[in-house]
Amino acid sequence: MRGLTTIERVGLSVVAGLTALSGVARYVSGFPHILAFVLAGLALAGGAWVVSFATEEVGATMGVAATGMLQSTLGNLPEFFVVLFALQAGELVVAQTALLGSILVNALLVLGIAIVVGARRGRDGLMRFSPRLPNDTATLLFVASFIIVLVGLAGGVHGPVSHHITAISVVGAVMLLLVYGAWAHQYLTTAPPVEEEEIESAGPRLTRRAALILLVAAGVAAAFVSDWFIHALEPTIRSLHISQAFAGLVIVAIAGNAIEHAVGVVLAARGRSELAISVIKASIGQVAAFLFPLLVLVSLLTATTLTFALPPVFTGALAATALIVWQITGDGEASAFEGTALIGAFVVIAVVAAFE
Amino acid sequence: MRGLTTIERVGLSVVAGLTALSGVARYVSGFPHILAFVLAGLALAGGAWVVSFATEEVGATMGVAATGMLQSTLGNLPEFFVVLFALQAGELVVAQTALLGSILVNALLVLGIAIVVGARRGRDGLMRFSPRLPNDTATLLFVASFIIVLVGLAGGVHGPVSHHITAISVVGAVMLLLVYGAWAHQYLTTAPPVEEEEIESAGPRLTRRAALILLVAAGVAAAFVSDWFIHALEPTIRSLHISQAFAGLVIVAIAGNAIEHAVGVVLAARGRSELAISVIKASIGQVAAFLFPLLVLVSLLTATTLTFALPPVFTGALAATALIVWQITGDGEASAFEGTALIGAFVVIAVVAAFE
Amino acid sequence: MRGLTTIERVGLSVVAGLTALSGVARYVSGFPHILAFVLAGLALAGGAWVVSFATEEVGATMGVAATGMLQSTLGNLPEFFVVLFALQAGELVVAQTALLGSILVNALLVLGIAIVVGARRGRDGLMRFSPRLPNDTATLLFVASFIIVLVGLAGGVHGPVSHHITAISVVGAVMLLLVYGAWAHQYLTTAPPVEEEEIESAGPRLTRRAALILLVAAGVAAAFVSDWFIHALEPTIRSLHISQAFAGLVIVAIAGNAIEHAVGVVLAARGRSELAISVIKASIGQVAAFLFPLLVLVSLLTATTLTFALPPVFTGALAATALIVWQITGDGEASAFEGTALIGAFVVIAVVAAFE
Repeated sequence: MRGLTTIERVGLSVVAGLTALSGVARYVSGFPHILAFVLAGLALAGGAWVVSFATEEVGATMGVAATGMLQSTLGNLPEFFVVLFALQAGELVVAQTALLGSILVNALLVLGIAIVVGARRGRDGLMRFSPRLPNDTATLLFVASFIIVLVGLAGGVHGPVSHHITAISVVGAVMLLLVYGAWAHQYLTTAPPVEEEEIESAGPRLTRRAALILLVAAGVAAAFVSDWFIHALEPTIRSLHISQAFAGLVIVAIAGNAIEHAVGVVLAARGRSELAISVIKASIGQVAAFLFPLLVLVSLLTATTLTFALPPVFTGALAATALIVWQITGDGEASAFEGTALIGAFVVIAVVAAFE
Repeated sequence: MRGLTTIERVGLSVVAGLTALSGVARYVSGFPHILAFVLAGLALAGGAWVVSFATEEVGATMGVAATGMLQSTLGNLPEFFVVLFALQAGELVVAQTALLGSILVNALLVLGIAIVVGARRGRDGLMRFSPRLPNDTATLLFVASFIIVLVGLAGGVHGPVSHHITAISVVGAVMLLLVYGAWAHQYLTTAPPVEEEEIESAGPRLTRRAALILLVAAGVAAAFVSDWFIHALEPTIRSLHISQAFAGLVIVAIAGNAIEHAVGVVLAARGRSELAISVIKASIGQVAAFLFPLLVLVSLLTATTLTFALPPVFTGALAATALIVWQITGDGEASAFEGTALIGAFVVIAVVAAFE
Repeated sequence: MRGLTTIERVGLSVVAGLTALSGVARYVSGFPHILAFVLAGLALAGGAWVVSFATEEVGATMGVAATGMLQSTLGNLPEFFVVLFALQAGELVVAQTALLGSILVNALLVLGIAIVVGARRGRDGLMRFSPRLPNDTATLLFVASFIIVLVGLAGGVHGPVSHHITAISVVGAVMLLLVYGAWAHQYLTTAPPVEEEEIESAGPRLTRRAALILLVAAGVAAAFVSDWFIHALEPTIRSLHISQAFAGLVIVAIAGNAIEHAVGVVLAARGRSELAISVIKASIGQVAAFLFPLLVLVSLLTATTLTFALPPVFTGALAATALIVWQITGDGEASAFEGTALIGAFVVIAVVAAFE
């Protein structure tokens, strides 16, 4: 680990410490629930950063687009485990809202802040970027919303079809994964290379073996911490009188995405609009069209089955989010007012979730 | 008032006469309800014109964008008072549909007519204009629709959240006003100046003092006339067997917007597409993202509380209108057929309201 | 008929044979239902091709745009009769889903396949075409969806308006036909001529009289075959345990559009994107804004009245389809991944219909 900077070493140590503390908090009886929950949340957010960091090192010889894809895929490991353990613990509402929250936090809150920050830097108050990825992400979000809306409307009517929600969800999940696969293939083969300056010229600082060990360790840690996080969630919700929907949609979603989020905003503040939008957009499409359907399929093996049947208000929120995000970013430019609109929409959803 | 043209003087006199007659109709017992209603409706429409006229004079030294904004803001005074008195009289359906009707009348009927008329004048049958304002208006309408759809879906399910519709509406109203404020700030600071030819070269014809007196008088008159209008509305609805929704969505909405409407169509007929679209679009965004949330907040003090919870059919109509208007005008050009589509959509909504 | 190629003569003979066989199957007692259904389905698909072929000959002297319009209008004759006989036989679900299916099969399945095939041929994996027709079709689909969503929401609430669904549907149908008329007028008068190479240089191969006889014969045959098709449908559905919705949305819709569909895909495979998109798009707009409202009006005379009130899940599917198709094709280019997304959406709808 000699190639690392001091900050990186301190970061890794802090995450390791937080992870250890979360473990202690989980198994020492009498440990305050809320503190255990906060520790696990921080360890989770830190774990996402370590996974992202280790992937970058592993992928240093792989090309930029492929590394980016691998990074954001593995970066979703903590969310994957959190939802999995929530389903195993019978917390269906938390699992659903955590997934939905990952989409909404990125598409409304993070994107909104990045636009407000980025538009300040742009000429004539506009943040500019290639419209290609925003449009691809819009297509992925629309197809996911399409399936979720259909399942919602089919399940809402108490006809024969409402008994087949799981079957329809499985078919929908397979279709969504195929569409995501087609997009990923196209993105990796035809995406223009990111400008040279984007690539860190440093080269790998860890040996490939050290990076792989770090990646596996972070993945395993994420799995354990996710379990502890979910374990501390229920008593925390009760103590603080928070609704399950608010916990999933806001708290878990932000904890599971915090570091990735910060990166997008920091890039926008530095005027690197193109990369900021790429990081945020890729994450939105991936949760909607890869992580969600994958978990629908995996949940066939867990205690609780995850389907695309969400409460109507969240189904509507997702469809409306897909539309408004496309309207704002589909033309390749966005102004501060448009960023404000996205943030405002998120606040209203959070308030609705708080009362749910 | 020496600087005024004969037509303007006659116009002001007629409006003053109509206002006086409406007052007589209100307080003389035995006066026919329907006639009283028609008189108040005409006085209301005239009052909107006087406010608009006086604002132009007051703002003659203020710059075009600021004057336009002030003008359309104060031009909503009659609607503001009508909704306020309707709420005070317990007429929630009229209040809701009058607000919604102001959006739909402008976005479908007036915009549709302006496009049909304007496309005739354009090269190759297309009306052309800058896509900026239509896209900004689409964003404002989407955010307003977003909140209204969420409130509708949250209230539709009879869970705990349906008891918190007022709280959610208040948060939504504050967010909407912040988004509108961000837009107005951006519009006033970065909007390109309207072409010189658009500016009336005449300069102010009234002294600033006379214009201010006229403005205040018109505002006070609008408040009184609105009260009389609402007072005559209920018996008129009963006599004519009109539904409350039709009264609000069609009659009140057209009475409250009539003059502003005519202006947009006349400008389109003269081939001044850019200005025609600006006048109509600004009015749409303002009712949706300024007047509606403002009245939600103000209504906390009135007999009936206004929330964003509308009947499902009108919630759907608003969301669908936001989408179709963006689809038609977001690319900066519109053909006669597209104008016809907007008008057709309005007719169907009016028929639905008639049966509601 | 000397001017015809051998393939065309064989084709006409096969269709004539299938039509005769369907007639036999209808009136010979004990003929297996499923075989009768398959024969009538094939005769119906063949009939659509003969109508299209005969129209092309009749219109050889009429100009390309007018011929294309006439061709696709008459090409909907089989669907018109199928829906009519379904309504006469009291099969409302089949009638509704067959109409909706014609839109969805074209807009999702056929367009999706054409895009996947066409994008392979394009430079850098993109199929390119003029955005004008896709945007016009989007407007037509949005207005149709607008009316259907309004009727659905108005009927869903069990208030007074739900008793007036037929009246609202009639007004909606008239408006939709006016909008379609405005579009057709504009399309025929301002559409740029299709590139010269698109026009078959051969000139008419049939005399005008022979072509007219063929057209009338094909039209009459389509009417009879449609009757036989609907007659064999119900027992086939029962034998195969298919839902009525699946029969209408998938089987009838594909049988009624099969040949037109193949043409669009073949054109895309040959790299003639512009024409491929025209053929498919024109058909979508026509079913939504001409055939559907026409049948609503005509159904006032049949045993069962067709309205715009569809089951919520299909209303949602139509609105979502209108949006996603516009998002994908409105910018004048589409990639293979976007075609996959359309196909995936169709598969999910078909599965929902199968369980309905």
